[in-house]
Amino acid sequence: MVTLTGAEIAKHNTKESCWVIVHGKAYDVTEFLPEHPGGQKIILKYAGKDATKEFDPIHPSDTLDKYLPASKHLGPVDMASVESAPQDEEVMDDLELARIERVKRMPPVSQCYNLLDFEDIARQTMKKTAWAYYSSGADDEITMRENHAAFHRVWFRPKVLVDVSKIDLSTTMLGCPSSVPFYITATALGKLGNPEGEVVLTRAGYRENVIQMIPTLASCSFDEIVNARQGDQIQWLQLYVNKDREITRKIVQHAEKRGCRALWITVDAPQLGRREKDMRSKYDEQAANVQDDEAAVDRSQGAARAISSFIDPALSWKDIPWFQSITKMPIVLKGVQRAEDAIKAVEYGVDAILLSNHGGRQLDFARPAIEVLVEVMTALREHGYDDKIEVYVDGGVRRGTDILKAICLGAKGVGIGRPFLYAMSTYGEPGVVRAIQLLKDELEMNMRLIGATKVSDLDQSFVEASSIASHTYVPRDHLSSQVYDRLVTPPFVKSKL
Amino acid sequence: MVTLTGAEIAKHNTKESCWVIVHGKAYDVTEFLPEHPGGQKIILKYAGKDATKEFDPIHPSDTLDKYLPASKHLGPVDMASVESAPQDEEVMDDLELARIERVKRMPPVSQCYNLLDFEDIARQTMKKTAWAYYSSGADDEITMRENHAAFHRVWFRPKVLVDVSKIDLSTTMLGCPSSVPFYITATALGKLGNPEGEVVLTRAGYRENVIQMIPTLASCSFDEIVNARQGDQIQWLQLYVNKDREITRKIVQHAEKRGCRALWITVDAPQLGRREKDMRSKYDEQAANVQDDEAAVDRSQGAARAISSFIDPALSWKDIPWFQSITKMPIVLKGVQRAEDAIKAVEYGVDAILLSNHGGRQLDFARPAIEVLVEVMTALREHGYDDKIEVYVDGGVRRGTDILKAICLGAKGVGIGRPFLYAMSTYGEPGVVRAIQLLKDELEMNMRLIGATKVSDLDQSFVEASSIASHTYVPRDHLSSQVYDRLVTPPFVKSKL
Amino acid sequence: MVTLTGAEIAKHNTKESCWVIVHGKAYDVTEFLPEHPGGQKIILKYAGKDATKEFDPIHPSDTLDKYLPASKHLGPVDMASVESAPQDEEVMDDLELARIERVKRMPPVSQCYNLLDFEDIARQTMKKTAWAYYSSGADDEITMRENHAAFHRVWFRPKVLVDVSKIDLSTTMLGCPSSVPFYITATALGKLGNPEGEVVLTRAGYRENVIQMIPTLASCSFDEIVNARQGDQIQWLQLYVNKDREITRKIVQHAEKRGCRALWITVDAPQLGRREKDMRSKYDEQAANVQDDEAAVDRSQGAARAISSFIDPALSWKDIPWFQSITKMPIVLKGVQRAEDAIKAVEYGVDAILLSNHGGRQLDFARPAIEVLVEVMTALREHGYDDKIEVYVDGGVRRGTDILKAICLGAKGVGIGRPFLYAMSTYGEPGVVRAIQLLKDELEMNMRLIGATKVSDLDQSFVEASSIASHTYVPRDHLSSQVYDRLVTPPFVKSKL
Amino acid sequence: MVTLTGAEIAKHNTKESCWVIVHGKAYDVTEFLPEHPGGQKIILKYAGKDATKEFDPIHPSDTLDKYLPASKHLGPVDMASVESAPQDEEVMDDLELARIERVKRMPPVSQCYNLLDFEDIARQTMKKTAWAYYSSGADDEITMRENHAAFHRVWFRPKVLVDVSKIDLSTTMLGCPSSVPFYITATALGKLGNPEGEVVLTRAGYRENVIQMIPTLASCSFDEIVNARQGDQIQWLQLYVNKDREITRKIVQHAEKRGCRALWITVDAPQLGRREKDMRSKYDEQAANVQDDEAAVDRSQGAARAISSFIDPALSWKDIPWFQSITKMPIVLKGVQRAEDAIKAVEYGVDAILLSNHGGRQLDFARPAIEVLVEVMTALREHGYDDKIEVYVDGGVRRGTDILKAICLGAKGVGIGRPFLYAMSTYGEPGVVRAIQLLKDELEMNMRLIGATKVSDLDQSFVEASSIASHTYVPRDHLSSQVYDRLVTPPFVKSKL
Repeated sequence: MVTLTGAEIAKHNTKESCWVIVHGKAYDVTEFLPEHPGGQKIILKYAGKDATKEFDPIHPSDTLDKYLPASKHLGPVDMASVESAPQDEEVMDDLELARIERVKRMPPVSQCYNLLDFEDIARQTMKKTAWAYYSSGADDEITMRENHAAFHRVWFRPKVLVDVSKIDLSTTMLGCPSSVPFYITATALGKLGNPEGEVVLTRAGYRENVIQMIPTLASCSFDEIVNARQGDQIQWLQLYVNKDREITRKIVQHAEKRGCRALWITVDAPQLGRREKDMRSKYDEQAANVQDDEAAVDRSQGAARAISSFIDPALSWKDIPWFQSITKMPIVLKGVQRAEDAIKAVEYGVDAILLSNHGGRQLDFARPAIEVLVEVMTALREHGYDDKIEVYVDGGVRRGTDILKAICLGAKGVGIGRPFLYAMSTYGEPGVVRAIQLLKDELEMNMRLIGATKVSDLDQSFVEASSIASHTYVPRDHLSSQVYDRLVTPPFVKSKL
Repeated sequence: MVTLTGAEIAKHNTKESCWVIVHGKAYDVTEFLPEHPGGQKIILKYAGKDATKEFDPIHPSDTLDKYLPASKHLGPVDMASVESAPQDEEVMDDLELARIERVKRMPPVSQCYNLLDFEDIARQTMKKTAWAYYSSGADDEITMRENHAAFHRVWFRPKVLVDVSKIDLSTTMLGCPSSVPFYITATALGKLGNPEGEVVLTRAGYRENVIQMIPTLASCSFDEIVNARQGDQIQWLQLYVNKDREITRKIVQHAEKRGCRALWITVDAPQLGRREKDMRSKYDEQAANVQDDEAAVDRSQGAARAISSFIDPALSWKDIPWFQSITKMPIVLKGVQRAEDAIKAVEYGVDAILLSNHGGRQLDFARPAIEVLVEVMTALREHGYDDKIEVYVDGGVRRGTDILKAICLGAKGVGIGRPFLYAMSTYGEPGVVRAIQLLKDELEMNMRLIGATKVSDLDQSFVEASSIASHTYVPRDHLSSQVYDRLVTPPFVKSKL
Repeated sequence: MVTLTGAEIAKHNTKESCWVIVHGKAYDVTEFLPEHPGGQKIILKYAGKDATKEFDPIHPSDTLDKYLPASKHLGPVDMASVESAPQDEEVMDDLELARIERVKRMPPVSQCYNLLDFEDIARQTMKKTAWAYYSSGADDEITMRENHAAFHRVWFRPKVLVDVSKIDLSTTMLGCPSSVPFYITATALGKLGNPEGEVVLTRAGYRENVIQMIPTLASCSFDEIVNARQGDQIQWLQLYVNKDREITRKIVQHAEKRGCRALWITVDAPQLGRREKDMRSKYDEQAANVQDDEAAVDRSQGAARAISSFIDPALSWKDIPWFQSITKMPIVLKGVQRAEDAIKAVEYGVDAILLSNHGGRQLDFARPAIEVLVEVMTALREHGYDDKIEVYVDGGVRRGTDILKAICLGAKGVGIGRPFLYAMSTYGEPGVVRAIQLLKDELEMNMRLIGATKVSDLDQSFVEASSIASHTYVPRDHLSSQVYDRLVTPPFVKSKL
Repeated sequence: MVTLTGAEIAKHNTKESCWVIVHGKAYDVTEFLPEHPGGQKIILKYAGKDATKEFDPIHPSDTLDKYLPASKHLGPVDMASVESAPQDEEVMDDLELARIERVKRMPPVSQCYNLLDFEDIARQTMKKTAWAYYSSGADDEITMRENHAAFHRVWFRPKVLVDVSKIDLSTTMLGCPSSVPFYITATALGKLGNPEGEVVLTRAGYRENVIQMIPTLASCSFDEIVNARQGDQIQWLQLYVNKDREITRKIVQHAEKRGCRALWITVDAPQLGRREKDMRSKYDEQAANVQDDEAAVDRSQGAARAISSFIDPALSWKDIPWFQSITKMPIVLKGVQRAEDAIKAVEYGVDAILLSNHGGRQLDFARPAIEVLVEVMTALREHGYDDKIEVYVDGGVRRGTDILKAICLGAKGVGIGRPFLYAMSTYGEPGVVRAIQLLKDELEMNMRLIGATKVSDLDQSFVEASSIASHTYVPRDHLSSQVYDRLVTPPFVKSKL
């Protein structure tokens, strides 16, 4: 295979013939353009050029091998002959300069005392698009915020005078031992936040003995993440089901062979959620070449179409037996949201369900998992099914108390996603380790304070959750509040006015 | 008919003899002055002058022909001889200059990702009086805001593992097919926001196959709006009932003849609502000649009196059979607000009811339609009437989820008003088209996410609405909140203080 | 009686011998000092000087005649010989200058569109101490604000298709005809807000046919207020019961003789409420001579003691028959706050009760009257007593809708206090007239909009009040809200950042 | 014993040999380093130096005698030979200068009209670390704020026409007479706020006849606090139970011998709470020498370990009989939080329980005591146990009304902590006296206003607490609130824009 020059490649810079360079090799992506999940516009921006920098954070390294036929691999490029990328995208605006300044002044990781600290630092130091992708939710982000807020409707009923000299946080989830009743859940595009991607989570999970769920849409390839596994570390697989079941079968069986211990099938995302913060963020970045409104409309529709060529919106209950036939891994339905479906899951012989609304990223006004949990556990108990299935929850977990509340209400374990992404994006592996340690510290102390010594002690009697389904809204009375003359404290305060 | 000169007309500039020029023709409006719904003051401001610019946005083009006897039509004017309008009203203040600057910097319509975006842009770019007229509500605007906020008390219970590869949003309302379960409802004075007026909505409705309800108080004439209809597009008529039933009969029968497919009789507006934001806005504009307080008081009372000479406050249930006798169009009562009246409507043989509080513009503390809907459907079911009448709702709808919630709770369709006005006022027809498309996108995705493939799938099991009638209020504890020292995140934030 | 000179009076400027000048006459108040309800400190400030300016706003003109024995009336003063008051108190600070500037720029009364407008203008234009006295409430002012806010928990259930061409707001309260179901309630110290005092309210009440309740603690004397009565205008008497029942008997019988038509006995104020805003305001004003902390403590205790020498804290149910024996006026208990006391009132043969917490000025966390009303009417109905007694409410009424809600829930009438004080303090009689007219406008329109034509039509079916006793509190989650990145609308907004 | 020189001591400035000077004497603390509850880092900062200034506020004066063997007492130091402390820590930043300026402008104590006033002044004038230690709570401080806020869910039902000329606030708690139904509760480290420490509270308690609970973690020694007792003043003992029961026995029996009248055993703090505000505050102060992250992590873990070497996490119900065997003082369990434990306490023969969450400093989302009180009293009544045990509450009490609500709901007395610390930290003894007097004033007035003359009159009928367990949360709708155009009052306000 001959070595290509930048000049040759530069000629293929149109829709009709589109070549790009990635990691020093050239590829002909012309035919792939309409199938690109992110739309063809973004590829065309790099037509005839080196796209490595843009490509890396959002594609596993084996993407081109997997999805592009060998015939389209054009071979090595003489990179010295490639014109360096235009500097204009390097011109930084004031906001970006301020961000870089904040990165320099980041506090040491030891000054993070809780998971929200990582989030705040991430908000101030992450690249705008990365922050937008991680932090955004569906529509008005009501569900996204409600996920955390709903924990505020559950309060503790601690027991006193219990011998709590020894606290044991360990538990078993899906037959797998864990040092804690929470796990690192699957989240997409880890390289947006950290150039190493999801393997950072793998290594931190090993250090703290926390199970990791490997995402289908990871930036690292599946094998890279499995290869990063150490010792008897446990990993699970999260799966978006492909329309082509053969591809799905291969993924599942490959994962089982590589030692994955459970299969989490995502059932709450037949279509990619609209996240407006994310959309605005992308728009801004590409503002230069989006003068035509029609094109913009197309782009949005294209993304929706693209995703449906990958995730199967036709996935249904009747597919469950097939999954049970192709793997021995325990099967978990990820994204159950009503009691009726929990009952059905038991009847279909599913091993576990995850109550989740996908971090508030899919359907706004989906109920928070902690609220659904109460409904589901009540229904399971009424059917005598409560020991026939394991129930997990995720969404909005930021505190040890959040985890305890979920366990008390019947959850077997709790998934945590964004907080570890933020920890990874700001401080890398030490950040994730610190985040896990903080949760362990909180859990140990809170177990002690509610009077429970081990996970199996936790039951409903420890919580008061009668307001869990209370959803109210308080209208503002603007004229009255404007007219009201607020009370103030003594005069030396007033003299400042 | 001779051509008149500006000088001749300028002589008739008093209450005793008041001539005005509109579109190059002169009219003697002296006798009409006391009957003018907007008060005579505003006409007298243009006595002896060209009133075209002020006249246009708020009057259908056939107004003068319809309401002013031919004898008062004085004929063409030599416009060259008319002194141009005084420039003083052209002097713009800083606020107006800033507004114009914002108009220039409006983002492309493709950057509007939801209906609130149009509203925000409208707030910043519309003329102050137009914005005030569209955006204002009754009293403290509690009901106006509650209309949208009440949707926050309804949450979803999605089904998973349903084959949602095909989503069908189409439905039938009052026997009319529609691509979606919402329609463009009747709103007054379209030309305040867009010089073309309501026909913009007609054209957008055609493009997206959405039904339009034609308002009595449109800026365009009824026939202009009907003439803008294309293909098999569907239009309905909204009716304010005139004291003179003969006029009402003519309007109804003319509409039926011109192809309107349903008659929506407004029953929640026996008197025009007081909207203080609107009143203040008008007051400011005319500040120059309102030095006398008494006159101002009169003006307000005059407006109330004027409106009662047009809309009939005596309209009652016993008028219903008469309406049924003069038209074959299905009849809808627009503005029902309690279960008892819904039952009555069935018993009177009415075809449908619209639960509505007139966009929060009439009675403050009228309940939101989504709350009334729960009460009404419960009562209809108890009477076995739920399939005897169609139920519609409007008010506060901004999201696809809002529409789905209403349909799940029993509504046949949902009316949307202000959002389309804002879209029309900012981006014209492409704005309205975009707004409809955004709703369709949201609806399609949300249907998929809750596990429903067609409108008839939607039922109560998809929603949790037990808090719908919960109205609370949280007093502020000012001293405590002043004293409390808020938590902050790590030090590099604090160093900014 | 010889004419005294300023020099002679100036010698009596101590606690041991304290003379003051009021309206050109000298008085020896030495013995009265310990009994002064406002404390002796404030009198001593004017010892030997002219106190007219300070005296006027807070004392009826007959105070000195009534409370100071003739022997202490020292006779006329040669005012030319009196040194004019020191100018230092005339030195105005910036805040006061800004206030005067605002007074000059006050909008015409016709620009007030609701009662809150008067309140806002009063806040900005009234003298600080006057505003503090009128606007303050007990402790944290939770009840004061809750009084208005509680109306937000009551919503309407309007009837449609009712003939509302004629609306009649008139009613009868305690056998007295009134143009409206509200009255001007008793409030203290009217001259703080308007130099003419309570007679302004009398005249406005006459113009609009609204009943006035005359306060015991008026700035005008009782007879001045009665003398201001015109035609068949109706006045009631509000009574603080004196420890010396003979004084009380005289007041009551004098009022009856002068034509008062009802006796409202205040039962919720055995001790003067502490209003911290008011206390701070006074403190500031007198800051110069309050260096000694002990004195300040004394002053506070002194005020409490002083008031108990006037209002009788021993007043109890067993006094009721005595009141019934000394007057034929209907008797109303002003300040009832629980159902048990309402029942008792019926059994004691009392004619009416006023559910009130004294405008939130006495006990913080007293419940709002509209909430107590629901409890009381339920109890009265259970006892079959609901037509044995009239029930009134006051507190927080600012809107026509507030009044309608109270009437629907069973009140016979509604008292309004502060709003009329604010109207009087800003625009005098025209202000009060305007305020009453605005309420009438709102009432008429709102009656029409809920489908009621006369006061007796109003019943419980028009309101939804199931949340009336719901008192919740929402803790703020500071770290989460700090971390959350708010949604914003399109880019041309963001570019302003 | 020879007198040591500064130079000799300065040599022992390492972990291997660590000497410090306190009050002119030298001590060898090398072996004590790992046991120091505050971690060894802070001691090492003063190795070889004079630590008096740092030592004093947080250690009772007998600490070194008690906890350091005599052999480690090295004898007197020639202080003239000791180098004065480095000035660098004296360099004040702008924030500190501003604080000192505020201290100078503090208003006289008489201008504090309620307990929140002291808190606000404390916030502005206390040293940052002291404020952080006193004011901080667990995690997000939700429980800490909820403690006060929960009182907002309880409202009064006052009786009228009760003879309230005489009000008696006195009561008996644990058999001890008190002028009021509240007491000064135990709080740690009094010298942080006032150099004299807890004896200030003792003296103020004497002046106002209020019982004081002596804390285990006081800055003054136990005997100093007892020695400050005057007349028949009453003191109780708060106890953290030591792992070494012999030490505990000595403390208890010594307290009984010294006249303490009750034993309050803390049962809600088996581990020290994490208070992030406090942690951040400390971190800042020591920022200079904390460059190494690992050390910081250790420090945090060390603190947890250290505390467990002192407070016994194994304390359990089976220890109760032992306490009953070693003392005749009534025994109170401090920190009960659920009805089941209240019942158990009765069955164990305990004399009283304190419903408390430790001022919100231990477990976030522990319920407020006033809420637990309702649950506990209901359970006690159901078991017929309500007169078998006394029930106390603390947490969030700031107003006389708060105290009354607790007593009405069944509490025998109410503990108050932080408010007295703030009063002490700002105005010393006169501040605490003033704070107590303000509460008495409020209580007396509020008793009068609800119609109760003595503490035993107070019962459930005086309160409406049906919302006490209502915990809700209101999500913000950011886009809508951003889009909404707020109502404003008349134009002279708008012209300011």
